[in-house]
Amino acid sequence: MRSEIIQTQTPTTPSALERCRNSIDAVLQESLAPYSSELYDSLRYHLGWRDTNGQLTGSHSGKALRPTLWLLACEWAGGKWEDSLAPGAALELVHNFSLIHDDIQDGDTERRHRPTLWSVWGRPKAIVAGNAMRCLADLTLLSLQKNTDVPAEIIMRLSQSLSESCLEMIEGQYMDLSFEADLDVSVDQYLDMVSRKTGALIECAMFMGALIATHSLQVASAFGRCGRLLGLAFQIRDDLLGIWGDSFSTGKATGADIARRKKSLPAIHALGNAYGTDRVELRRIYSQSVLSELEIQQVLQIMDRLHTYDFCQTLAEAKKQEAVAALQGLDLTQKSFREFQQVAKFLVSREH
Amino acid sequence: MRSEIIQTQTPTTPSALERCRNSIDAVLQESLAPYSSELYDSLRYHLGWRDTNGQLTGSHSGKALRPTLWLLACEWAGGKWEDSLAPGAALELVHNFSLIHDDIQDGDTERRHRPTLWSVWGRPKAIVAGNAMRCLADLTLLSLQKNTDVPAEIIMRLSQSLSESCLEMIEGQYMDLSFEADLDVSVDQYLDMVSRKTGALIECAMFMGALIATHSLQVASAFGRCGRLLGLAFQIRDDLLGIWGDSFSTGKATGADIARRKKSLPAIHALGNAYGTDRVELRRIYSQSVLSELEIQQVLQIMDRLHTYDFCQTLAEAKKQEAVAALQGLDLTQKSFREFQQVAKFLVSREH
Repeated sequence: MRSEIIQTQTPTTPSALERCRNSIDAVLQESLAPYSSELYDSLRYHLGWRDTNGQLTGSHSGKALRPTLWLLACEWAGGKWEDSLAPGAALELVHNFSLIHDDIQDGDTERRHRPTLWSVWGRPKAIVAGNAMRCLADLTLLSLQKNTDVPAEIIMRLSQSLSESCLEMIEGQYMDLSFEADLDVSVDQYLDMVSRKTGALIECAMFMGALIATHSLQVASAFGRCGRLLGLAFQIRDDLLGIWGDSFSTGKATGADIARRKKSLPAIHALGNAYGTDRVELRRIYSQSVLSELEIQQVLQIMDRLHTYDFCQTLAEAKKQEAVAALQGLDLTQKSFREFQQVAKFLVSREH
Repeated sequence: MRSEIIQTQTPTTPSALERCRNSIDAVLQESLAPYSSELYDSLRYHLGWRDTNGQLTGSHSGKALRPTLWLLACEWAGGKWEDSLAPGAALELVHNFSLIHDDIQDGDTERRHRPTLWSVWGRPKAIVAGNAMRCLADLTLLSLQKNTDVPAEIIMRLSQSLSESCLEMIEGQYMDLSFEADLDVSVDQYLDMVSRKTGALIECAMFMGALIATHSLQVASAFGRCGRLLGLAFQIRDDLLGIWGDSFSTGKATGADIARRKKSLPAIHALGNAYGTDRVELRRIYSQSVLSELEIQQVLQIMDRLHTYDFCQTLAEAKKQEAVAALQGLDLTQKSFREFQQVAKFLVSREH
């Protein structure tokens, strides 16, 4: 039943999400260009540009959602981002700093079909590499001082927003770690956690884009609210893909997040709503450290009975609607608003 | 022989290093005041203010060398720091971020006679806690926007200096990790490593203090150079204390850094200069993962034969002299220059 839904709804990526991909990659490469040594090679490896021997791969980094939403917010708010993509690059570097450390914390050995940084260079060096990525983010943002006419007060406000959202992201990661041993996480607790872990940086992206465009804190804050809600919607869809997504396009096996006993929204919904023997089984399964293929299938069946997929997808779409509402009071052009709606819709229907 | 030297030279702490201790502690506490939750309790624990249950300990943080040198540089350059200690607090937070992560990387279970953060909360949460400390540093520095009349351009320059030195510190830590498995680290490689790992942040401290005082990049850069050299001198003395320091005052056992096979300057000097059977023994001992008490004593005897202590102390004092020379061309008052010399002398003769 679910696979039918997926097949009939498979959406194409809106051109808005693709058209700036190369510019973003170029500015990211530029941010790292002044630096050589093994430390920076490990960062280029993580970003997908180099292999473990430092040889070019010809690939680019991930989907760069945060810089893309940054520059789209800038356009939608009536601004131009061509003068400098530095804030977009800074966002992507902060995001990748968090990925490098998350992989260590979660013990994940693979990301985007390649060994994670820590599993190549070891945990101690990987912690340091993540920290270096974070510093590069700050320095990239501050490079606005030299190359643009963005006023110092605005750059400082951008810098503050990036640091604040980084701290919130970190708080979210801490909550996520605390959830690991907890079978009774509520949907509200989950939403608070992902609002920080994923929402805060996407809020920052859209806030920064609109602030550069308008220099208005009021307009930027509305874009920021929209970003946080889009972030929630995006993350909930991500949680769904972590369980029901096609393994080739997501780079994870079906049921992958069940095997890792990840407290993503489907698990929280199922644990909170199963009753009778389903409840007993689910709690037993989620208390173990290693799950069998049979147990993963059991969990999938329980989730089917509880309509967990529908619950999550409905919530993702509700958050997306709230995100759309956050921009409705603003004076966007029809073209911009239509493009924004296409992007928002894609984020909750994408397959990878 | 060496113990005689130590006893006759035991210096008293210059009052300059003590008189601002309480102000610094107050502003550090203020930086963390808006934040509650387990994550922030772990930071208060690391800083020495709380125990593992969140109860007040009545203690304050470490020696706060970086904020102290920041405010002394500000005074020596003719400025006033009373308006805001935010940059000082930011420096101490960056330093403590690095300590939290270093302890994880080195697997150290004890710091300042207490269990390290990671050994109480576990490695994943400790990585996150270190990251939070780093964000608090940035936000504390940016709070200058609200509470002072420091111009936006100067705040941005401070922010850039902090990020640059943080990146250098991280590069130094990476080099230090790379030295672990290397028996042929040269003194020059060591100096390059500690210039980054310790020197960069102390350069930043004195640069920031002088920049706030004078708004002159030229004066601030001279103070910065002085800071980096003082940092080198301080670190070399630290390396000596890590082997010959009194265990009560340093919180480490005598020979502690030998037991950990740390590539501090004494080890590098001995490995590079021992010959014959001493060389063979030393390389054998430093290739093992666990050392016996007898082997530690053997290393101490080899270092005695090579006059390793004197070599290191002479180098520390040479760097201190270079640091003094860096400020000699500036227009400091006699009182300030005398105080600076006292502080510099103390840093290379201190016992803890």
